[in-house]
Amino acid sequence: MADTKQLWERYQAQLFVDERLGFSIDVSRMDLDDAFFAQHAALTKKAHEAMAALERGAIANPDEQRMVGHYWLRAPTLAPNAELRAQIEDTLGAIHRFAADVHSGRLSAEDGGRFQNLLVVGIGGSALGPQLVADALGGANDRMRVFFFDNTDPDGIDRVLEHIDGAGGLARTLTIVISKSGGTKETRNGMVEAQAAYAARGLSPSAHFVAVTGEGSELDRVASSQQWIARFPMWDWVGGRTSELCAVGLLPAALQGINIEGMLKGARAMDELTRNADPKKNPAMLLALSWLKATEGKGKKDLVVLPYKDRLVLFSRYLQQLIMESLGKQHDLDGKVVHQGIAVYGNKGSTDQHAYVQQLRDGVQNFFATFIEVQKERAGSSIEVEPGVTSGDYLFGFWYGTRRALYEGGRHSVTLTVDDVTPHRLGGLIALWERAVGLYASFVNVNAYHQPGVEAGKKAAAAVITLQGKVLGALHATKEGVSAEQLAGQIGEAGEVEAVFKILEHLAANGRARKDKGASPCLARYSR
Amino acid sequence: MADTKQLWERYQAQLFVDERLGFSIDVSRMDLDDAFFAQHAALTKKAHEAMAALERGAIANPDEQRMVGHYWLRAPTLAPNAELRAQIEDTLGAIHRFAADVHSGRLSAEDGGRFQNLLVVGIGGSALGPQLVADALGGANDRMRVFFFDNTDPDGIDRVLEHIDGAGGLARTLTIVISKSGGTKETRNGMVEAQAAYAARGLSPSAHFVAVTGEGSELDRVASSQQWIARFPMWDWVGGRTSELCAVGLLPAALQGINIEGMLKGARAMDELTRNADPKKNPAMLLALSWLKATEGKGKKDLVVLPYKDRLVLFSRYLQQLIMESLGKQHDLDGKVVHQGIAVYGNKGSTDQHAYVQQLRDGVQNFFATFIEVQKERAGSSIEVEPGVTSGDYLFGFWYGTRRALYEGGRHSVTLTVDDVTPHRLGGLIALWERAVGLYASFVNVNAYHQPGVEAGKKAAAAVITLQGKVLGALHATKEGVSAEQLAGQIGEAGEVEAVFKILEHLAANGRARKDKGASPCLARYSR
Repeated sequence: MADTKQLWERYQAQLFVDERLGFSIDVSRMDLDDAFFAQHAALTKKAHEAMAALERGAIANPDEQRMVGHYWLRAPTLAPNAELRAQIEDTLGAIHRFAADVHSGRLSAEDGGRFQNLLVVGIGGSALGPQLVADALGGANDRMRVFFFDNTDPDGIDRVLEHIDGAGGLARTLTIVISKSGGTKETRNGMVEAQAAYAARGLSPSAHFVAVTGEGSELDRVASSQQWIARFPMWDWVGGRTSELCAVGLLPAALQGINIEGMLKGARAMDELTRNADPKKNPAMLLALSWLKATEGKGKKDLVVLPYKDRLVLFSRYLQQLIMESLGKQHDLDGKVVHQGIAVYGNKGSTDQHAYVQQLRDGVQNFFATFIEVQKERAGSSIEVEPGVTSGDYLFGFWYGTRRALYEGGRHSVTLTVDDVTPHRLGGLIALWERAVGLYASFVNVNAYHQPGVEAGKKAAAAVITLQGKVLGALHATKEGVSAEQLAGQIGEAGEVEAVFKILEHLAANGRARKDKGASPCLARYSR
Repeated sequence: MADTKQLWERYQAQLFVDERLGFSIDVSRMDLDDAFFAQHAALTKKAHEAMAALERGAIANPDEQRMVGHYWLRAPTLAPNAELRAQIEDTLGAIHRFAADVHSGRLSAEDGGRFQNLLVVGIGGSALGPQLVADALGGANDRMRVFFFDNTDPDGIDRVLEHIDGAGGLARTLTIVISKSGGTKETRNGMVEAQAAYAARGLSPSAHFVAVTGEGSELDRVASSQQWIARFPMWDWVGGRTSELCAVGLLPAALQGINIEGMLKGARAMDELTRNADPKKNPAMLLALSWLKATEGKGKKDLVVLPYKDRLVLFSRYLQQLIMESLGKQHDLDGKVVHQGIAVYGNKGSTDQHAYVQQLRDGVQNFFATFIEVQKERAGSSIEVEPGVTSGDYLFGFWYGTRRALYEGGRHSVTLTVDDVTPHRLGGLIALWERAVGLYASFVNVNAYHQPGVEAGKKAAAAVITLQGKVLGALHATKEGVSAEQLAGQIGEAGEVEAVFKILEHLAANGRARKDKGASPCLARYSR
């Protein structure tokens, strides 16, 4: 391990600063020496070239035979043809006009009043970006208050509706349903539940609903036939987890009153920086190389994300999706079984220092950290909590002290510094990690742009729903109580007794089946 | 791997159900066979006996020479002496009386109005429990609305204050400052910032403040000398991360209108279950043995916590602290270097299925899962989102499908099932994990009740604050701009140039130092 003098030399040599983005990246605590850069020169070059090809419109998602175009969203002139460019520009214009109409009251609620709330119905890539931006850039003075349905939990849905009822009600709430395919059940259920809630309050759902979805999707057809207020497009060349800078993220943000042009500009500026062929001058490449070093290209260590700023607490969750869904793959691009990925977790500093930094410092060495330092303390001036010391000085001190303590214990870290959390800076951070993920995927030779395992999970759930239908049918035909084993036999699913038992328990707990206790828990008898 | 028929046999054999707690634990997907139980019989017995001794009042935290008494909080008759028993009972009575006085308006705000908001100032063990309970058991109809300062981020503090201003204001806000030692800087800073905010609005802080702290602590002295409304005790035999069921958690919960007696009863009932010497009939032992199996007693796999219920989204964060701070230790009880721990992360299902379950299914096999299934869908009845199918059926289906898909891919999981999320059930869940952590700590021979690494982090931060004082002093004395290297030399801290540079950058970003650019970022010059 280097002493503080040597560390300062390395810090100066490796620090990458960009004034325009108010941004710097410090990899000095990753122990990346010249030999490491040299050793990975070919890999770095390959990743750089693959990324350039992707940006030119190559099929970068071979599994689904798709282009990967999220970089064009903030630089439409780079889109591979005029049609795509026009789609991006037209949609952005439509978002601006729509938000202006809602804000001015030109587009009003059913009763003529102004929309004051926003309910976003979406999950995964259709929720995490909007949630991050709403929290990181919003506040008590937003133009619209934002709520989310991001699950298919009935109680969770009821809770959000209660909060909306206490904040002007659904009559003043615009609902945006976001689903690329339109086939995501959680979102479909959220839409149906929201429509029922509007109807129960004597409101017409169609007069409050907007869709963001692929053209011709199931959701698109519903929105069209029900004559929703508006529809905004998603494209097959934008993946859910990189969709924050298309209508998915921009529409809610614009309605909330956030400067979306700033977000786009910040992302564009970061894209320009991260096209640099020199890895030492490319922050995304430095990040990806740091992951390669820490995980040996095999996911051997977890990535702990610690932003020292309350506004960024959801950034770790956003990155959890971006990184784990992109890199967590069974097969590489050659079809070899590789079980790739990097596990990501974290909330915020210094709060997490009082939660699990005990383990990071002293415990199992199975992680590396990425700190996010935000230089500006607050909008106004600070009081002193001690002579000459502010709360923000402590926040800074806790970060610096932790970075040091971890390194002294042989734990690596990267530090990203931004001067402030603004639309521009957040756009830049999003773009930085998007590209780092793409580059790292190239290092380890996986498709970063598909998610076969998610499809498999949906199928497994659909099978349970189908089985439940059979169980309900059999229950209906039965006069006397039956055990799970008996019922499974009756419906020709003897191999599925456990699933049948769990389904019966779920139905009984919700008043949809009657349960009589048996000699042991699994021998209970159920009837209609 | 077993087929579904064999799995059903094992499921029935291993399922542990308790009707009184509406609770079951299913370890059938951990592949714990009889040989495993037999192999660990001695370890199991040792852990059981150590826990019994702890409950009788043995010094279970040898490092700090303390008893560990959180189990007495819900069963005061078990406390090792009458004095402790009286302290617990008296405090609980005082909490009930205080909450009743606030709710009735007998205890009113400075202007005679009723307190309607609660601001909790605390971090780590003094925030995560109250945050979990406020979110899991609260809703739009709480008796008081709860806000938190859980960090030393000035902007974060301002954001919360803005929200309070929009919700009745500080004039109607009771502030509870929670710190056992009274020396936690984040909490001290939050208190000072909150007091300044009250004063800036023409209010007297003392008329709005309550302390929860150790007798004679720094915070206790402040609260006493400033004549705060009330003080509630913390005891040295209750650790921060197991303090939810003392005044730390009970006071905010009671004020919010939550049934704290239900929480205590649920915890007590779970404690009774988890004192069973038969590991197969002890849910906490089954949990701890599952961890031993998955991690080989060495933290080899991460614990992913996935509650399929929005209300429990913070439970994973609560467990992250409870487990990682308790188990993440450098030394074992014999002083040997062991670097123990289990990394914990997770948010909620099925939401996380659209975030990182892709990696869990297909990617790096470095985890095991704990699902929490909640049977009851919602308070009222559900609409159908398809014929015969509710949103809650889908939530159930996604859980069951994911559990199956993971197991088919060789990934282990435990499932905890509760019938509903109530104070009683949540009290039970908290008690379950507290004991599992204690038992596992015994397995791997570490002290689960201290946190030496947290202290080290505090010291490292204090050093940065001290250095900043020197930097500010030198800046003040300097007429011309100096570089970080020059200034470090001037104050005799040549080895600390990097820290000096970062401090100067932080000061400059907040208008507390002037910065002139140099030939490179690290050569900038600073002046007052």
